[in-house]
Amino acid sequence: MRVIPLGTSSGKPTLKRNVSALAVAREAEWLLFDCGEGAQTQIARAGLSPSRLSAVFITHLHGDHFNGVPGFLSTMGLDQRTRELTLRGPRGIREYMDTLERLRISFVTYPIELKEFASLPELTVVHETADYKVSACELDHRIFALGYRVDEHPRPGRFNVERARSMSVPEGPLWGRLQSGEDVQLGDGRVIRSSDVLGPERPGKSVAYCLDTRPCAMSIELARGVDLLIHEATYTEEFAQEAREYGHSTAAQAARTARDAGAHQLLITHFSTRFPDPSPLLAEACAIFPNTVLAEDLVEIEV
Amino acid sequence: MRVIPLGTSSGKPTLKRNVSALAVAREAEWLLFDCGEGAQTQIARAGLSPSRLSAVFITHLHGDHFNGVPGFLSTMGLDQRTRELTLRGPRGIREYMDTLERLRISFVTYPIELKEFASLPELTVVHETADYKVSACELDHRIFALGYRVDEHPRPGRFNVERARSMSVPEGPLWGRLQSGEDVQLGDGRVIRSSDVLGPERPGKSVAYCLDTRPCAMSIELARGVDLLIHEATYTEEFAQEAREYGHSTAAQAARTARDAGAHQLLITHFSTRFPDPSPLLAEACAIFPNTVLAEDLVEIEV
Repeated sequence: MRVIPLGTSSGKPTLKRNVSALAVAREAEWLLFDCGEGAQTQIARAGLSPSRLSAVFITHLHGDHFNGVPGFLSTMGLDQRTRELTLRGPRGIREYMDTLERLRISFVTYPIELKEFASLPELTVVHETADYKVSACELDHRIFALGYRVDEHPRPGRFNVERARSMSVPEGPLWGRLQSGEDVQLGDGRVIRSSDVLGPERPGKSVAYCLDTRPCAMSIELARGVDLLIHEATYTEEFAQEAREYGHSTAAQAARTARDAGAHQLLITHFSTRFPDPSPLLAEACAIFPNTVLAEDLVEIEV
Repeated sequence: MRVIPLGTSSGKPTLKRNVSALAVAREAEWLLFDCGEGAQTQIARAGLSPSRLSAVFITHLHGDHFNGVPGFLSTMGLDQRTRELTLRGPRGIREYMDTLERLRISFVTYPIELKEFASLPELTVVHETADYKVSACELDHRIFALGYRVDEHPRPGRFNVERARSMSVPEGPLWGRLQSGEDVQLGDGRVIRSSDVLGPERPGKSVAYCLDTRPCAMSIELARGVDLLIHEATYTEEFAQEAREYGHSTAAQAARTARDAGAHQLLITHFSTRFPDPSPLLAEACAIFPNTVLAEDLVEIEV
């Protein structure tokens, strides 16, 4: 998977950082997490094709995570998208979309498969395809806010060509069937089990997205063992009181969540405009969780 | 007055042109016409101070003229604006703002003095200050759309220092009173009329803003004798049929409106993304109305 931050500023954009939005791209499709104002322009800058977007996941309805929705959806309408778009987020989106459609503000011509949630106390699968599942649960912000987690399904183990040859399995369609996990019978009556020629199942990659939230038990559960935890780090510890009051996390708190969840890597984002130079945020997180990266708009992370 | 186009693309943004928004700046304040997505970032790039914004005028509710409203209003809230903001536009804005406030999408902490119109068949003053008035009327688009016109009030004539001296008016407060149009009595009993020492009244500048519209009689009335007509020119004549169907103007139609209204200068904007090179639009307009300028994002026009 490739993770592309499209906006890394909290509250309002700066000339260097747009407001929250983040793409998770895998193979021929991508997923969008949050869609702050201007996300569609960042998407174009990142070279992401809107026609390959499968699903949008909104954490909460604060404008800096959400105001880019009507423009981006309408642009896909103008571009004659016909493919269904999956949309998940907090309750209120349907009312919002209905109002915008009635007032003719937005222009959406394709089906939107929307599920909205008013409560999600436990980690729950909210979207699943043949290749991955997306789970969500409630975090701890000023208003109802969801965190998300993407888990790729495990892939079959590597095909052991040498072993297949040594068992005299003829190269061709039988190899493909074995590779996809099927057991096969040869012409001489022998049964070859897929597990005889495949290595151990390879785990899929996983990414968790925790914006906006105070540190909480659900963040740790959401991020358990992920390859990459994307977590807000609005403030340094110096502003811990303000973070608590506004429902945000400090960089140290984000790092502790990554550590306690056993995440492999941490990407911090959603920086207060009070930090035109965010390096103190990175230093604070790295002191607790060294494998931390600071998000920059349009700078891609390989998972 | 200074006119600063903040977005010149129709429908959706490109990497070179944002969607519709335009600032009219005069002395210590400025006015915003339309507020497409990303307008707040363009405002920052233009160096316009949000705290000096007096009023916002929305032409119609299509998202490419309107989706920047909640983000920009909320940013001024985050920046602790307390000053009242004047807002004018079509009916629907109040319902939209109420919905966004209820869903906690927007964050507005200062008073908004909103008037919205469901019908405005005649040119009507919709906002007036000591220095200028703004009038509006209905144009001819796919949905209800308003055009606007700013007229600065005439300023008193220039003070004739030589003449005041020759009439032995003592320099000081009396000069100020005469300058502001008041008649004064000197110590020797003589009455000096303001008109004795002031030149002819100087007319204020005027600007009209016609987006989005088909060519129509009201556009011509709105633009009558203005110093600068800002008019949409979404297409070239080649696409006149499409322009008509979608409620837009060609560059030639914009030019004819400028000519028929006796405008001094024409600024064309709101270009279809089908014209990555908009020079054919400029050529088409100039053939009919030579004093035409093609709008570029953030390139200022002095009126």
